[in-house]
Amino acid sequence: MTSRPETPTLDRVAGPADLRRMDDRTLSTLADELRAEVVSAVSETGGHLGSSLGVVELTVAIHAVFNTPMDKLIWDVGHQCYPHKILTGRRDRIRTLRQKDGLSGFTKRAESEFDPFGAAHSSTSISAALGFAVGRDMGKATGDAIAVIGDGAISAGMAYEAMNNAGAEGRRLFVILNDNEMSIAPPVGAMSAYLSGLYAAEPFQRMRTFAEGMEAALPAPMREGARRARQLVTGGLRGTGTLFEELGFDYVGPIDGHDMGQLLTVLRAARARATGPVLIHCCTVKGRGYAPAEASADKYHGVGTFDVATGTQKSSAAGAPAYTKVFGQALTEAAARDPDLVAITAAMPNGTGVDLMAKRFPDRVFDVGIAEQHAVTFAAGMAASGLKPVCAIYSTFLQRGYDQVVHDVAIQRLPVRFAIDRAGLVGADGATHAGAFDVAYLSCLPGFTVMAAADEAELVHMVETLRAHDEGPIALRYPRGTGTGATLPARAEALPIGRGRLVLEGEDVAILSFGAHLDRALDAADQLEAEGVGVTLADARFAKPLDMDLVRQLARNHAVLLTLEQGARGGFGAAVLEAMAAEGLLDRGLAVRTLTLPDRFIDQASPEQMYEAAGLGARHIAAAALAALGRTSKVVPFRA
Amino acid sequence: MTSRPETPTLDRVAGPADLRRMDDRTLSTLADELRAEVVSAVSETGGHLGSSLGVVELTVAIHAVFNTPMDKLIWDVGHQCYPHKILTGRRDRIRTLRQKDGLSGFTKRAESEFDPFGAAHSSTSISAALGFAVGRDMGKATGDAIAVIGDGAISAGMAYEAMNNAGAEGRRLFVILNDNEMSIAPPVGAMSAYLSGLYAAEPFQRMRTFAEGMEAALPAPMREGARRARQLVTGGLRGTGTLFEELGFDYVGPIDGHDMGQLLTVLRAARARATGPVLIHCCTVKGRGYAPAEASADKYHGVGTFDVATGTQKSSAAGAPAYTKVFGQALTEAAARDPDLVAITAAMPNGTGVDLMAKRFPDRVFDVGIAEQHAVTFAAGMAASGLKPVCAIYSTFLQRGYDQVVHDVAIQRLPVRFAIDRAGLVGADGATHAGAFDVAYLSCLPGFTVMAAADEAELVHMVETLRAHDEGPIALRYPRGTGTGATLPARAEALPIGRGRLVLEGEDVAILSFGAHLDRALDAADQLEAEGVGVTLADARFAKPLDMDLVRQLARNHAVLLTLEQGARGGFGAAVLEAMAAEGLLDRGLAVRTLTLPDRFIDQASPEQMYEAAGLGARHIAAAALAALGRTSKVVPFRA
Repeated sequence: MTSRPETPTLDRVAGPADLRRMDDRTLSTLADELRAEVVSAVSETGGHLGSSLGVVELTVAIHAVFNTPMDKLIWDVGHQCYPHKILTGRRDRIRTLRQKDGLSGFTKRAESEFDPFGAAHSSTSISAALGFAVGRDMGKATGDAIAVIGDGAISAGMAYEAMNNAGAEGRRLFVILNDNEMSIAPPVGAMSAYLSGLYAAEPFQRMRTFAEGMEAALPAPMREGARRARQLVTGGLRGTGTLFEELGFDYVGPIDGHDMGQLLTVLRAARARATGPVLIHCCTVKGRGYAPAEASADKYHGVGTFDVATGTQKSSAAGAPAYTKVFGQALTEAAARDPDLVAITAAMPNGTGVDLMAKRFPDRVFDVGIAEQHAVTFAAGMAASGLKPVCAIYSTFLQRGYDQVVHDVAIQRLPVRFAIDRAGLVGADGATHAGAFDVAYLSCLPGFTVMAAADEAELVHMVETLRAHDEGPIALRYPRGTGTGATLPARAEALPIGRGRLVLEGEDVAILSFGAHLDRALDAADQLEAEGVGVTLADARFAKPLDMDLVRQLARNHAVLLTLEQGARGGFGAAVLEAMAAEGLLDRGLAVRTLTLPDRFIDQASPEQMYEAAGLGARHIAAAALAALGRTSKVVPFRA
Repeated sequence: MTSRPETPTLDRVAGPADLRRMDDRTLSTLADELRAEVVSAVSETGGHLGSSLGVVELTVAIHAVFNTPMDKLIWDVGHQCYPHKILTGRRDRIRTLRQKDGLSGFTKRAESEFDPFGAAHSSTSISAALGFAVGRDMGKATGDAIAVIGDGAISAGMAYEAMNNAGAEGRRLFVILNDNEMSIAPPVGAMSAYLSGLYAAEPFQRMRTFAEGMEAALPAPMREGARRARQLVTGGLRGTGTLFEELGFDYVGPIDGHDMGQLLTVLRAARARATGPVLIHCCTVKGRGYAPAEASADKYHGVGTFDVATGTQKSSAAGAPAYTKVFGQALTEAAARDPDLVAITAAMPNGTGVDLMAKRFPDRVFDVGIAEQHAVTFAAGMAASGLKPVCAIYSTFLQRGYDQVVHDVAIQRLPVRFAIDRAGLVGADGATHAGAFDVAYLSCLPGFTVMAAADEAELVHMVETLRAHDEGPIALRYPRGTGTGATLPARAEALPIGRGRLVLEGEDVAILSFGAHLDRALDAADQLEAEGVGVTLADARFAKPLDMDLVRQLARNHAVLLTLEQGARGGFGAAVLEAMAAEGLLDRGLAVRTLTLPDRFIDQASPEQMYEAAGLGARHIAAAALAALGRTSKVVPFRA
C-alpha cells in the first residue's frame, strides 16, 4: 500500500509552458515534488527508477529554459524520461508505465510531441539532434536541438561518430553530458579528454570561472564527484585536454546537476550565447534523493514494484529458473571443461548471465563496454587465434554488430559462438527491445549455424553444442524470462548439427516449431486433439542447416504443415519454404502456413499478452491449423 | 605493352624470413624494387595502387622486424596489401589480382597464413589484433599483434571502441597509424588529439627525442607533412593532448614512413620495449614514388590498367551510363524540384554519385565520414524535422548501420530514403563487397518499402518514387556497373507503391524478377521460347509491399513460377513464398523455385562470371524452368 505524495506545485503544471512562468525557487520546489511523484509512480509499476531520479532537476531546468516542444529535447536511451513524461502532459498515465496499453518506458514519438525522437538503444541522441539542427537551418519549424546523453552512452562508437560530425558541421546544438559515475570505468577514462576547452573558447569564459569556483560551494557528497569530473575534464594534474574543442565544441562545466540555480544559470547563458555546438557537462547522482536507491549498489537501475517507505522490492514468485541464469550456469560449466572458452559482453554482464562465469573465471570474461561492433570483431580475432569465444549479446543489440557478423565472422568462417538472449518478444521494454529479426538476418549468411532452445533443458545441451562446434559461426537464441520448468540434464551433451526431434506423432497436421514457442505448440496440439485432429509436433532445433529429412517426412505424411517461430518473417518459416520449393515438395500441393511475428511492431505488455497480440497464442496456432484443413472450429476462434 | 622492372634483390625473397637476413641498406634497395614491381603488376591488373605505394617501406620494415606469420600483421581495409602479398609468397600470382581465380584485392585468410585476419571494410583491425593478443596471453601459438590502420579508418566509431578497450586491457599490442593525409579533414582533426603522450610515458622518451629532431632532417616535401602531423599530435601550438595516453597507449611519432632507417629503428625499439599497447604514428604519401600517382588528385586510389611510362589509364569502352551516374543525375534533378531533399553519404560522395548533387546544391549534401551508424540516425533526425533525406550507402556498408535502420528509422516509421548502390554481386572487390543481404535484412522490417531497379530507366522513376514517398522508410537498390542501355525517360514519374509490371506474356512458365536481373530473365525467356515453352515475365519492382494481384495472377495461370533476384535467400523469393503460403496459393500445388544467390560466398571475378558461378546465368534460369516443368532440355544444360 503506497500513499500518494502531496504535490501542490506539480499539480499546477499542465505542461512545460507553466514552468516558464515560475520563479527559480518555485522550480526547486517543483523538482522535489516531481521526485516524490516519480518514486510513488514507479513503486507501483516498476521501471528504470535510478536514472530518472538522477535527472529530476535537469528535466525541470531544461523545460524551464528551452521552448519545448518547438525546441527538440532528445533523451539518449530514453529510460530516464519518467520526470519528463510527468511534466509533458502524461502525468495522468504515469502509473501505466511499461504496461499493456500504457505509457512506454522510453521516449516515443507516437506518444507525445514532446518526444521528438524516441530511443531505447543507447548513443543515438547526438546524431538525431544534429539532424534536427540541419532541419532548423533549412527552414523547418523546429527550434534548438538538445541531446541529453550519459557518460556510458557517450563512450560508444556511434556517439563518437556523431560528435566528430557535429563539431565539423559547427551548427548550434546542445549536448548535455549527464555524468552519473555509473558507467564502466575505462570508457569514462577514454572519454574524459573529450571534455575540455577551459582556456580557449571566449564566449563561455565567465561560466567557466563560475564553474571553477563551484567545487567549494558544493555539499560534501557532491564535492568529490565534481572533483573527479573536473579531473576528467582537465586531464587531471596535467591541465591538458582540448579534444572537445578540437572537435569544434564549446565546453561548459562541470556543474552540479542537482543544483537548480547552477542548472538554470548555465542553461540560460548557453541558450543565449551559443553559436555552434556546446557540451554542458553535468554531474548527477543516480537514484538521487531516494535513500534506498542511493544506498543500493545499482542505484535501483531497474526495479520491480516496491514499498516507498522501506524501498523493499516485491520479490517475484519462485518458479522455473530464468533462461539467462541457466545459460550462465551452463556456460560456466562449459568453461570449466574447456580452458579455451572465453566470453564477451558489451556492457551487459548481468543481463547476459556471463557474470556467473566471471565469478569463477574472471580472466576469461571480457566486458568491452557499449561497443557491439568491437565486441564481435574482437571475438573474431580471438577465434582466429584458436580460442573459443562466446559473444553474448541480446538479439536486438546484435543488430549493432551486424556488419561485423557478416564481414569478420561469416565471410571468414570463424567459429565465433553467439549467445543471443532476449530473442522474440520481451515484455515491458516493448518493440525497441524485441528480438524479432535475428533469425532472418543470420540465416541468410552462408555457413552460419542457427539454433534455438525450446526450453531450458535444451538450452543446456545447446550451450555444449556451441562450445563443441568449431567449424564456423554458430548462434543460439533463447527468450527472456523463466523456462518451462523442464528438468535440467545432469550432463550437457552436444546435439547433432542440423537435426531436429519429434515431440508428438499424429496424422493430420504437422507443426514444425523453432525455439521457445514449443510449449504453446503443445497447448495447440491439445486443443486440436480435442477437435479430433491428429498432430505431429517436431522441434526443429536448427533454422540452419535445416533437418531436411524431418521436413520431408512432415511434408509427405500430412495435409497441413505449420511452421512456428518467435521471430519476424524471412526467418525460419521462410527458410523451410525455400528449401521445400527447391526440392519440389510444394509442387503437388501442401497447405503450408508460416506462423511468424506479424508485419508490425508490437507495443509493450507481458510477453504472453504480446504473443496474443501477435496472433501467436496457442488458440491462434490451433485455429490456423483448422483453417488450413478447411475446417471451422466449434471451440477455437479463427485467427483475426 | 609494359616491360617488367629489374628486381635482383626482390628475386632473392621467397618469404619474409629472407628480409630478416638483409642489412638495412639492402632493405631500402628491396623497397625500391618492390615499388617498381607493384607499379608494373597493377598496370596490368588495375587496383588500389595509391594506398599500396604509400606503404612499401612500411611493409618491408614490419616484415623485417616482426616475426610474421607467428606475429600477426593485420592490414586495416586490406587494399594496401599488394606489397605485402608480393613479399609473402604470392609474387608469382600478383598479376592475377582481383581477377577470377586470382588473388583477392584484399587480405584473405584462405589465401595465406600471412593474412591472419582478412578485411575489406574499414576500421576492424584493432579489434581483431586485440583478439589475437588475448589468444597469445592465453597460451595460443601466436606472437605479437600489429594493426596497420589509416587516418580515415581510425576515425570511425568502431576503431574508437577498439582503442578504448585495448587501452583498458593494457595488453602488448601495436597499432601503426598510417597517416597519409588523404582522409576527410574533420575526422582527422578530431582524431588528432588522440595521438599524444609526448611528455609522460617513460620507455619511449628516447624515441620521442629522436622524432622531435626529425623534421629538419626530412626532405622538403616530407617536412610539411611531418610538421602537420606533429601539430595534430601535440595539439598544435598549445602543446596539449594526451588522450591516447589516457586510453592507456604509449605513443611514438610522428616518423617518416618512407625512411627505412627511421622505420626500422622505431619498430625494433618498440618491439623490444613495449609492455602494453603502443601507437606508432607514421606519415606516408599516397602514391609515393610513382610520379603520375603523386601528381593525381586521388593519388591513383583505384585505377584500371595503365601505361607505366606515362601513367595513362586505359579508358573503358563507351557504352551505357553507370547506374551510379544515372542515380546521381536523377537525384540532382529531384533536388532541383524539391527544396526539402537532402543527401547523406558516409565518405563515398563519388562512389555513390551524390557528388553530382553536391556540385549544384553543396549545402544539401552531407558527407559524415566513415560513420554509417551516425549517417543513418542523422538522416532519421532530418526526416523527423520534416526534410526528405536520401541516405546513399552501398548495400554492404549499410550493414554497419543496421541497428539504426531498425531502431531509429523503421520503428519510428520515419521517411528516410535509402539509395543502395552496389546491390548484388560487384565484381573485382569480391565477396566482402557483395550486396547480397539487404533484401533479407530490410524486408523483414515492418513498414519498410523495398524497391529494386530493373534498368537505368526504372532507376530514374524510382528516384522520384523515393522522393515522393513520405509514409515511412523506403529503400531502392541497384547494381554496380553500367545499365542495359535503356532509353532514359524525359520526365521522372513516381511509381505506384507495391505494383509490378508485366514484361512478357506466355502460357507455361511465369518468371517474377526483382531488380537488375531482368535482362537475364529476358535472355532465359528467349531460350525457353526456342524450346517451345511460353513465358510470362514480370518485373516485381517491389519486394515489399508485394504486388499480390500480380502474384495471384502468375500463380493461377502457370504450372511453374520462378522468382529471381540478385540477393541471398531470405529475401524476395522467400517473401513471395510466405505470402503465397498465407493465402493458400500453394495448397493445390505449384512448382515454385526461388532463384537466389547460392548459400556460399562468391569470390571475385567479373559480375557476369560471378553470376555464372552463382548459377544465375540466363541458361541456369531456363534450365530451372525446364526442370520444374519436368522436361529436360536439348540445348540448355541443367543447373549444377
